[in-house]
Amino acid sequence: MQLTTLTISSKNYSSWSMRGWLLARLAGLPFDEIVISPDDPAMRAEILLLAPSILVPCLRHEGIEVWDTLAIAEYLHEIRPDAGLLPADRKARAHCRAISGEMHSGFSALRSALPMNLKARYENFRVWARAQADIDRITVIWRVCINTYGGPFLFGSQPCMADAMFAPVVTRFITYGVEVDPVCAGYCDAIMSLEPVQEWVAEALLEPDGIDELEAEF
Amino acid sequence: MQLTTLTISSKNYSSWSMRGWLLARLAGLPFDEIVISPDDPAMRAEILLLAPSILVPCLRHEGIEVWDTLAIAEYLHEIRPDAGLLPADRKARAHCRAISGEMHSGFSALRSALPMNLKARYENFRVWARAQADIDRITVIWRVCINTYGGPFLFGSQPCMADAMFAPVVTRFITYGVEVDPVCAGYCDAIMSLEPVQEWVAEALLEPDGIDELEAEF
Repeated sequence: MQLTTLTISSKNYSSWSMRGWLLARLAGLPFDEIVISPDDPAMRAEILLLAPSILVPCLRHEGIEVWDTLAIAEYLHEIRPDAGLLPADRKARAHCRAISGEMHSGFSALRSALPMNLKARYENFRVWARAQADIDRITVIWRVCINTYGGPFLFGSQPCMADAMFAPVVTRFITYGVEVDPVCAGYCDAIMSLEPVQEWVAEALLEPDGIDELEAEF
Repeated sequence: MQLTTLTISSKNYSSWSMRGWLLARLAGLPFDEIVISPDDPAMRAEILLLAPSILVPCLRHEGIEVWDTLAIAEYLHEIRPDAGLLPADRKARAHCRAISGEMHSGFSALRSALPMNLKARYENFRVWARAQADIDRITVIWRVCINTYGGPFLFGSQPCMADAMFAPVVTRFITYGVEVDPVCAGYCDAIMSLEPVQEWVAEALLEPDGIDELEAEF
């Protein structure tokens, strides 16, 4: 029997790893983790052999290698259609993919100015104007979803692909003390209460320090 | 009967518009174009009303609004499953989504240093090292696909989602005189020979000048 593996890097610093890992957990797919340290040159070469690109996460399942977070999400939805990674309604499903796509390709100011760091807490952090524009857009996305589908997650009572995509934004808001309206604060609470999120964060806190922060968000 | 519309911006400068438009054409979906000029403040406000984000392209079909290029591709695949936007084989489909995802979220050096401009031709254009790394990765992606699936397109005899994603890279290689190996050159020829690509390019050449190039690649 072939092992199912998910290659990730730092649990404290890598938001893409967190997304891929949450997606696999939400899909209910059993998998073994392969953890790559991004600051180890040997491991860096390892990444090049393990995956066709240097990107993490990378899922291996039944002889199929899937990299890129959205591709992993769609793959997991295909093999676990009942897990609810995508909404059952066609319109909601299109909406879910659209905002997941926005997160996938955009919000570069937020990503560079407020890098994921689950161990850290910054008080009085000054948010750069362009990062604030990203924050404003993200909170609009969240409010529209929760007002449309009823919450507590973006598309209703169960977390889906879009929640995995935005979960590392929730942790950034906590790390950098970004204040949001009550609807969005409730959404942040719902994400942080998820068992797989709590497990990921707990493991991140146990991770050794020493990873070069500049290289973490690759 | 509700009109199906696709909102795009400049045919000469907007690579995301080109991708969305090609996807809709490859899917065989009849649609009306709504063309937004990115340098017109009134049109800018129009974009804000037309789409939940300022991103183009945006597809409206049967009361459903879909933005973000990958979300549009998945939507078109759902409503036109026989058009072949995604490969029929599960492994090839995962591969197609993975490289489409790489194009969607990555290659920022290429995108900023070699912006799409179908009307222009640059001789002896000097490619910045980071853009060259993007070019190197893209040509690896293309060669692996063509060697695996036989060409002339990335996943075989018919163009698919991934070809729409990489078509504006092909036009950049022509605009900036980027030299590639014979396999990739053959792929560029295949893309440029596609009827919808030829139609798009012809319309781009007729487009009035005056769009602020710095704002085109939004």
